Amino acid sequence: MDLVTIDDISDAATRIEGLVLRTPLVDNQRLSQELGTRVLLKAENLQHAGSFKVRGALNTLLAWQERGELPEGVVSFSAGNHAAAISYAGQRLGVRVIVAMPSKPVPSKVANVERFGGEIVPTDDLATTLGELAERHGFPILHPFDQSEVIAGQGTAGLELCADGPSPDLVLVPVGGGGLLSGVAAAVRKLAPSARVVGVEPATSNAMSQALAAGAVVRLDNPSATVADGLTAPFAGEHTLPHVQAYADEVVEVGEDAIQSAWRELVESSKLLVEPASAVCLAALRTGVVQAPQGGVTVMVISGGNADLSRLA
Amino acid sequence: MDLVTIDDISDAATRIEGLVLRTPLVDNQRLSQELGTRVLLKAENLQHAGSFKVRGALNTLLAWQERGELPEGVVSFSAGNHAAAISYAGQRLGVRVIVAMPSKPVPSKVANVERFGGEIVPTDDLATTLGELAERHGFPILHPFDQSEVIAGQGTAGLELCADGPSPDLVLVPVGGGGLLSGVAAAVRKLAPSARVVGVEPATSNAMSQALAAGAVVRLDNPSATVADGLTAPFAGEHTLPHVQAYADEVVEVGEDAIQSAWRELVESSKLLVEPASAVCLAALRTGVVQAPQGGVTVMVISGGNADLSRLA
Repeated sequence: MDLVTIDDISDAATRIEGLVLRTPLVDNQRLSQELGTRVLLKAENLQHAGSFKVRGALNTLLAWQERGELPEGVVSFSAGNHAAAISYAGQRLGVRVIVAMPSKPVPSKVANVERFGGEIVPTDDLATTLGELAERHGFPILHPFDQSEVIAGQGTAGLELCADGPSPDLVLVPVGGGGLLSGVAAAVRKLAPSARVVGVEPATSNAMSQALAAGAVVRLDNPSATVADGLTAPFAGEHTLPHVQAYADEVVEVGEDAIQSAWRELVESSKLLVEPASAVCLAALRTGVVQAPQGGVTVMVISGGNADLSRLA
Repeated sequence: MDLVTIDDISDAATRIEGLVLRTPLVDNQRLSQELGTRVLLKAENLQHAGSFKVRGALNTLLAWQERGELPEGVVSFSAGNHAAAISYAGQRLGVRVIVAMPSKPVPSKVANVERFGGEIVPTDDLATTLGELAERHGFPILHPFDQSEVIAGQGTAGLELCADGPSPDLVLVPVGGGGLLSGVAAAVRKLAPSARVVGVEPATSNAMSQALAAGAVVRLDNPSATVADGLTAPFAGEHTLPHVQAYADEVVEVGEDAIQSAWRELVESSKLLVEPASAVCLAALRTGVVQAPQGGVTVMVISGGNADLSRLA
């Protein structure tokens, strides 16, 4: 298949301009001092609907609209952020959204979908339910990560972080299904060629690491046992795997304790309400599984902010 | 006395450039929809040391340094944010910092002072202890609000919000001793003359409202009984009162329940970790004590992010 290129990402940026926030790249002095590298946070938790996911969702619907193919409705599956994002995008463009979500989701994520008129179908088997929904409604799938337009849309976050800050030496990206890493790596590989781009996933939900090791997509049996609920993809995709192989330097894994403590430290030091999925990057630096470029520039992509406050305190 | 002017604020901006963050002005779509006005947050919770206070602290020390009057040490009093800010500024410029703080402070605020090497003197009478410290050490006072250089420094937040966003119709500012309101109002009055500038203080800690009513500084007996701990100034100042009289349109009061519920809603909707003091502005809009300009632009100045997470959940 054709990989997403910087041109696809630039087109996506033009398409979604004005509909998404150009989120700030926030200096974190406290983490910079602790880690010996200038830490900048690409704060997608401030994005509309609370995560980077609106970038890919809007780019996909708008690309379909350009081709005269905007459907009446779409179906998808999601831990919550993609569901909210496509609900948001669908509401803007008059497209019905039906989405399979885990039967025990994070409550704030359910509220965030309902706020934008999305219809939730609870399930314990996301992939199977998605197939059933697609068949029943005859709507196309707007995939949470495994679609070229989605990857190009997520890549606009990478385009912005390269344009808005100093040239990065290291870019860290949380990995669920790998859409964000695919897009950001495609952008950074071109715009900051000397930067290392590293994906981070929970050791208990490591679909991309398994896919990279096997050289093929691997379906996980139980990917939900992580505090980083946003990263519980049941597989890395047919599209995202080759993007990560081509554009990223490495994908690493972090444990649950490291994520939990990094989460709290990230919120306290950054003054940003982030979800635990966003803390895997800090966890990777603190556990030493990734070395920070001493005296250099490290960008962590903060994926989202749809966290339940009660779990943080 | 001479009031701080836009020229003083511009000088301050030049002086502190590169030492403070130009904090983002963050669109809040959820509050915008709820309130019928475009809500922008000037996110000073992301500022170094966690609040706007570094602006005034650095401007004062740097102005003294320019005049060849940089002291060996300074003394002050603070609920916590000013203490952290002058500790931060003092550490940068090699100035010792000794600060009187409430004997039962917010724990995260104590940690934030100690992180930057500030020396804390716990007290139940801030003003008296400050006088004692000044006498004992022979150091000048770097006042939390009642000093021209401090007011000019805080005003740089107003300068930035006018420069970085659409022209505001309403600017809301939390009020403790009134330094932030004084500076921001001075800037906005000049740069966006048609905007209303409104200060908001807790009804239980309303030194500025009392001073405005009396036409003179009023000392409060017990100003600490508010969840908005950052706004417990024991008096509005000899400097800040005339600035507010000259530059601000109004100062309003909000109750404790309104602050508490606005705090949670502000954090959840903005994805910013803010301290409760920052929520008084939202409380003022939600209680109707201030009318939002329907279809217009409302900027809320988010004063700081030094909150204890446990109090939020």
